[in-house]
Parts: sequence; C-alpha cells; structure tokens
Amino acid sequence: MGARTKPCHLPAAQFSWDNQKADQRRPPSHFPVKRYETFAAEIADSIRGGLLRSGDRLPSVRQASSSRGVSPSTVFQAYYLLEAQGLIRARERSGYFVAGGGTAQLPEPEPAVPQPTASLELDISARISEVLGASMTRDMVPFGSAFPGPELFPVARLARAMATAVQRLDPWAMVDDLGPGSARLRRQVALRYLVDGLHVPAEDIVITNGALEALNLCLQAVAKLGDAVLVESPTFYAALQSLERLGLRAVEVPTHPRDGVSVEAVAAAIAQHRPAACWLMTNFQNPMGGLVPDARKQALVELLGRHGIPLVEDDVYGELYFGERRPAPAKAFDTRGLVLHCSSFSKCLAPGYRIGWAAPGRFTQAVTRLKLATSLATCVPAQAALATYLEEGGYDRHLRKLRLQLALQQARFVDAVSRHFPPGTRATRPAGGYFLWVELPPGADALAIHRQALSLGISVAPGPIFSASRGFQNCLRLNYGHVWNDAADAALRTLGKLVASYT
Amino acid sequence: MGARTKPCHLPAAQFSWDNQKADQRRPPSHFPVKRYETFAAEIADSIRGGLLRSGDRLPSVRQASSSRGVSPSTVFQAYYLLEAQGLIRARERSGYFVAGGGTAQLPEPEPAVPQPTASLELDISARISEVLGASMTRDMVPFGSAFPGPELFPVARLARAMATAVQRLDPWAMVDDLGPGSARLRRQVALRYLVDGLHVPAEDIVITNGALEALNLCLQAVAKLGDAVLVESPTFYAALQSLERLGLRAVEVPTHPRDGVSVEAVAAAIAQHRPAACWLMTNFQNPMGGLVPDARKQALVELLGRHGIPLVEDDVYGELYFGERRPAPAKAFDTRGLVLHCSSFSKCLAPGYRIGWAAPGRFTQAVTRLKLATSLATCVPAQAALATYLEEGGYDRHLRKLRLQLALQQARFVDAVSRHFPPGTRATRPAGGYFLWVELPPGADALAIHRQALSLGISVAPGPIFSASRGFQNCLRLNYGHVWNDAADAALRTLGKLVASYT
Repeated sequence: MGARTKPCHLPAAQFSWDNQKADQRRPPSHFPVKRYETFAAEIADSIRGGLLRSGDRLPSVRQASSSRGVSPSTVFQAYYLLEAQGLIRARERSGYFVAGGGTAQLPEPEPAVPQPTASLELDISARISEVLGASMTRDMVPFGSAFPGPELFPVARLARAMATAVQRLDPWAMVDDLGPGSARLRRQVALRYLVDGLHVPAEDIVITNGALEALNLCLQAVAKLGDAVLVESPTFYAALQSLERLGLRAVEVPTHPRDGVSVEAVAAAIAQHRPAACWLMTNFQNPMGGLVPDARKQALVELLGRHGIPLVEDDVYGELYFGERRPAPAKAFDTRGLVLHCSSFSKCLAPGYRIGWAAPGRFTQAVTRLKLATSLATCVPAQAALATYLEEGGYDRHLRKLRLQLALQQARFVDAVSRHFPPGTRATRPAGGYFLWVELPPGADALAIHRQALSLGISVAPGPIFSASRGFQNCLRLNYGHVWNDAADAALRTLGKLVASYT
Repeated sequence: MGARTKPCHLPAAQFSWDNQKADQRRPPSHFPVKRYETFAAEIADSIRGGLLRSGDRLPSVRQASSSRGVSPSTVFQAYYLLEAQGLIRARERSGYFVAGGGTAQLPEPEPAVPQPTASLELDISARISEVLGASMTRDMVPFGSAFPGPELFPVARLARAMATAVQRLDPWAMVDDLGPGSARLRRQVALRYLVDGLHVPAEDIVITNGALEALNLCLQAVAKLGDAVLVESPTFYAALQSLERLGLRAVEVPTHPRDGVSVEAVAAAIAQHRPAACWLMTNFQNPMGGLVPDARKQALVELLGRHGIPLVEDDVYGELYFGERRPAPAKAFDTRGLVLHCSSFSKCLAPGYRIGWAAPGRFTQAVTRLKLATSLATCVPAQAALATYLEEGGYDRHLRKLRLQLALQQARFVDAVSRHFPPGTRATRPAGGYFLWVELPPGADALAIHRQALSLGISVAPGPIFSASRGFQNCLRLNYGHVWNDAADAALRTLGKLVASYT
C-alpha cells in the first residue's frame, strides 16, 4: 500500500497576471479565481507582513488599474472588500489608507531553545476538559474555540446535498456503508489526494467520526501501553488526551513557531527515547501555525523510515493555505507505507458532520478492524451527503473563498492585537489555518487570564493545555476564524488590558 | 445522579378485549393498536410455542368473530396477515390451517452446565473481523447479519425528517451540539425513559456514535488495564473485542438460553475473580435471546451494588419485545448510580445513522470527557434528524409494526428450521429481538459450516465468535430479522443439509 504513494508534484501555475508579485500569487492556479480577490489578498498579505503600514496610502484606482492591467471595477471591488474587512479606510477626496496601528510593532515569537526532551506520563485530560467545556457556548467571544465561524461554511448547500442524498439513499446502504465507509465518499477522498499528486487508492481509506477518531485509531494501531510517542511542543491537546487514555508516554520535541519541528530535534529524541510512533502536524500546526517546509518533511519521513517508526500525521488544516498551493503532507514522501495520514471535512467544509478519514498505509487493515470494534461505522447519511456535495462540484470554489476570508481575518486580527496588547507581546503570522499563537510579556499567567476572560464573556485557549510539561504559561492560542466585527475588536481591547494588568 | 433513577413501574394495561389470553396481551397498552394485529400476533405466538401445530385447523371466521367479540373483517385481516407470512394456509372450502412441519419438533437448548469460570486474556478480534467482514455484503443471504432487514425501517420518513432538520438547523448548532450531544435529542431520549418509568435527566445522557461507542466509553470509565470484567457466555462478540482492545480480562459466566445469567453464578464469579465491572445484556441477549426476569435483575443490581461493581448494561434490543410491555432495564432498579445504561436507535429505527447513547449514572462526567477525547462529538445533522422524527411522533407506531413483523418472522423461521435441520437440533424461542440461537447435533462444526455456507452465498454467525474460550462450536446465531421469502426458506434448507452432512 505504502509503495503506491508517490511523492507530490503539484501542477505549475497556469496563468500569471502580475509578474512583479509572482511569489505571492494565489490561489491554486488550477481553479478559477476572481481577480479582485487575488488583488485584495495580495494587499492583505503586504499589510500582515508589515510591508504596508498603518497610514500608508494605497495607489489610486486609476494608478492601480493601469499598473496592474485590470479594470477599474476590479480595483474598486478589491478596495471595498478590504474596507469591509477593516484593513483599509477611505478618506474623503484623499483615497484609501491602511487602517490600524501597524502590525510591524508585533514581532514573531522566538523559536524555543531546544531543551533535553523528557518522557512524560500524562495527567492532563481533566484540565483540558475544564478549559474546553467553558468555551463551548455561543455566548462567548470565541477566541478559544477550535472551529472557525459557522458563517464561513456552505450550510444551505450542504443541507440541500443532505436532502438529496437521503432521498436517493438505497436502504441497503445502511449495510453496505458500514465498516470502512461509503464507496462513493472514499472515491471522492481518493480523487482529492490525486489532485494533490498523491496516489491513495479508495480501498486504503477508512472513513471515521472526524479526524479525532482517525488519529485515535491510528495511534492504537501503532503503539501499545507504556510506549513513548513523539509529539510537538506545544502540541494539539487532543494528542495529549489520547496518549493519556491509551497509557502512552509523551516525548515533547521543541517546535519552531514558523517551520515546525526540526529533523535534528526529532533525531535526538529518537536516539534518547526510542519512540514507538510520532504524532505530528506538518501543515499549520495547532496551536502555533508552523508549516514544515517540503524538503524538511521529506527528510523527516526518511529519518523515521530508517528507524521503522510510523508517523501519525494530523493534516486537518492543510486545505486552509494562504499561499499559492496546498502544502504537501508528509505522506507525499512516504515510500514505506509508514505514514498514517489523517484529515477531515470538519475544519474546511462541514464542522458538525463529523466526517474524517485515515489513509493508514500498511496499517489499513489494523485500523479498519479497530474502527469496527470501536464504533462500527460512521453516520451513513452524513457520508452520502458529503459524497453528493463533492460529486456536484463547488468544493474548491468554497475553499477559495474560505482561504481568502481567513487570510483577511488574520490580517485584521494581527493588526488589532498589535494595537491592543502591551509592548513585549509577540505573535505568529501563520501562512494558513485560523490560529494565532500569542506570546505575552513575562509575568502574564495564561491560565489566570483564561479564567478572568471567561468571566468577561471571552474565551481563550491558554498555553498550558498544549503541553504535558505544563509549559507555555505566558502563551495564548487565539482563533481568528470568526467573522471580524466591532465586538471582536472590543474583546481584543479588553483582553489586551487584562494582559497588561499582569505585566 | 444515580439516586434520581427510580425503580420502574410501568403503567397497567388500559384495555383488554380477551381475558382468556391476558398473559399474552400485547402490545403496550398506552399506544393505539389494531385489533387484527393483536389477534394475528397471538396466533403466531401459539404456533411458535407449539400450542398450535402443523395441520391444526384455526377457528372459522364466524367462530373467531363470535368468541372474541370482534368483527369478521378483523379476523379476516389477521388471517390474511398470517397467510402472507406463510404461517397458515387456506384450503378451499375447509378454512385455515397451520402450515409447516410443526415447531414442536424443535426443542429448546438445555442451559449450559455452570462450569468454573476462567479469567481469560483475549485474542479474538482477528477471527471476529474475518467472520463479520465476509458477511457484510448484500449478495449474501443475511442469516449472519447483526441488523434486521432495511425494509423494516421508516427510511422515507427518516429522510423527510433529515431534510427538514438540516434546513432548519441553526449553523451554531454545529458548535452547541458538540460534546455530550443535542439538547433536543437528549430530551427525547429522557422522555422515552420517563414513559418506561425511569427518571433519567437529559443532562445525564451522552449521545454517542451508536451503542458500541457508548459501551466502549462506559467500559473505559469503569475498568483499567488488567482488570477482570464479567461477561455472559456466550456473549456479544464486540464485548470481547472491547475487552481485548483495552487490555482487560474476560470472566465468562454461563448464561441460560431463556433467562440469562443467574445471580448465583455472578456471585460466584465475583468471589473468585473480583471483577472491576460487568458488561451484561439483560433484555433479549445477543446471541441467545435470553430475557432476565425483572426480579432477578433487581437481585443482580443489589448484588453488584453491595460490592460496588459498576454494570455496563447493553440494552439495544429492549424495545423489540413481543410481550405485553417493554422489559425493564437493570437500570430501573439502580439506586446507587452504578448502572451505565447504553442503547441506540440502530436496531429499532435508523441503522445507518449511528446514533446511540449512554446514561452512565455517577460516571456521566467521566464518560462525557472520554467522548470528547475519543471522537469529540456525534454527527449533528443525524442527531437533529432523529430529534425531529421523535418530536413529530409516530415512533411508537413504527415500533409496534416492527415488533409484530419480527414476532411473525420468528415463527416462520423456527418452523423452517424445524423442517430443514436434522434431528437433534435445538433452538431458542426468544421473546424479543431477531436472533435465533441454534444448537446443532453433536459433531457439527460451526466454523466449518460458516465457511462452507459463505461459499454458497449464505452467511451465519458461528458460535465460537461469541466466546473467549472458543466454546459453542456446534452453535449458530441466525438472524430472522429479514423479510421472509422463498429464498430464505431455500437457504435454510441448504443450511440444514450442510449441518446434516456433519452429523
């Protein structure tokens, strides 16, 4: 199975209307794109990156139209979009200016100094559940949420796909689609792998109750009680919960805020702890947003392969890239069938449907058996609805809009953090996803801030839930995946004051 | 939480039109019932039980109408129904006669002689998966299936409920309904408990991906690696798989084909093995169909309570009773919150929806946390669809038809087994559910028969997958939950010949 997985070669860009900015060109060239969206996203990128600062004047509509070779209406639409996002402001008779306080004031966090890794037994589930439970209510400003805003999803189209799917559903599908899942949906997932340059046959895909079940089943397939498992630090809290529940030990490897884990750190951890498996998130890692460069992914897969160590790869954010193309998963470089790739539709299409999958390589049979014994099967109507939606087309159009929206929201959010948080605050600028990792000035206590913020109607995800060693006590993960508005700005101002009171 | 669960006192019958058969009166009296269905079910009962035998003449329409005090058309409808089921045949000018070879030739299995129970480490998952995998195809005659025929479910009405539910679904439900589940659905489940005389508050209910996830989470909440867990022998194979996956040891307690486990056997197993928990199925146990009498359920709950041993109760067949009223779950007698009651809609309403629940008593918080860490949440549209269906009403009408259909199919099936299987065959006559436990004459090898039957397009569930100690080698579990037809009769004839070739 693994041998059939080929390295990923994505199709090259098929058009370019702005050679001066080819390196920031977006979105993926094999799908139609509206020019004003591309133009708006470029400007947002320049604001996020600090190239354009607060108060800078944008080119006039006539100038931009002429220099870019686009119609004035394209420029207008782009400026309207950016204005609606609060990123630029029109001044009467003077044109458009970059809004806000300038994000260049907000440096990125320094990479953590690699420390000797420990192998830890876990006792973290109760703390995580307490934090999450408090955040799961719609009355809160949802900075602590794990999901983007429901407004960003094609809820009505999904409802129509569901209605169509259940009407057409053969009653026997209730029998056929048990076990590893609907043949139609597995085919659609296999086709998406193919578009991304990976050959994963439909029969090597197991449909699960969200990516979380996929990750849990894969972990059980490759590690047994008492084994050490290598995870990032900070890492997705559910990885820690899974390890705790299965009686596994966590080996935390320091992770760069921008580039993810280093090959050297992983090699050192292997030598020291001989882990049975790794659980990593190579694309827009939760919580920091780091993106492991492709060459490093390949080196990691080769390193693990030499030691015969399976990699459970959590790739739920891979589709939410702001760059030109989807970053490859580590699985694209796997020639041994040792990468168990897990993903879902929960973060990019249909949050409540709880449809995920695993492509477990040589562990496909083991994962299929574990799925049967754990929850038998995944909701058949939900599988049919997503298969119908994907067959009908339009998923890529939706994704393109979602990525643009998230990129714009990130710019707005980073700008607001830079204005409202005290000096000494640092924040990542992930190239995808919807999480900002904020390092607060020394003295700030993220757990205390979490509790106080809750009492003010604001949820945050405090750093210590992302580490078995209870580190990151002055860090917060903030969700910028919700539609930006004045209430969000006010909540960030409140949060900034709260942080300032500690420093 | 547990203290709020009151013993179950079901409402008394509100009408009786046939005092002579009060003990067989059905269905539950608080829902409307068609007289001809009641009459037909009584006759089917008499045939199943051997009171009426092949060739016996039924009372004429006029006689029956007069003696029962019902209209002739009621009698006609009942006879038509029984004829359509193949249970009776009309002979021209002579009236109606009981068809078939007479089920009285088919004795019930003897209860197993209680043996000293062993505490077993498990290695059974691969064998179970192999057997099940081969059965999961619609080309097979599905005697080995775990589900009743999809024709028995209100597929079209469920599809409409789903379409309505997803159209109305607030996008924020995708957030609100994560965790323990939809408030609407939990309320509906709580209302059903109330109808059955149990007070289980909605907030003590955790919605899961089918009962299987509920059972797995409950087991994890009460037992840890290496613990002994008491199960029936034979038992539901998924219980053995769960125990194996969690590193638990199985203590198998001999089970009576008709009455389930005995209090004495459980007491002895407790004294010998000090189990951390029990996993039992008190109503229409899978695979044998035994029904533990209410008084014995109460004694069991008290015994376990005195030892502080939690009971994970699998009650997925409880709604499929053929008698007058729903048998109480053990939870109805629980005053300590030690019974973790698990059930689902998969066997009685919506197989592919994968909606189950746990009412874990004092372990509710632990199970809620495990659910979050295992699969986060259950498919939101499926929860909304079932909530809509239940709110709209009609579930009890559906259940009434389903029970009648299953009772009639059992009679037909038992009759066919008695005609086609060799002398020395024994079979249970469960008072609910859709499984027949068939004890073959000495020399029959169930696993070999399973393999040969598969090659002939017939699936069966061989006895050894229901036991960690690999017993029951001459037993089969046969599913009579599929609509009866000539193909089924022919397949049972083929199966009977296969069995005869071994004996």
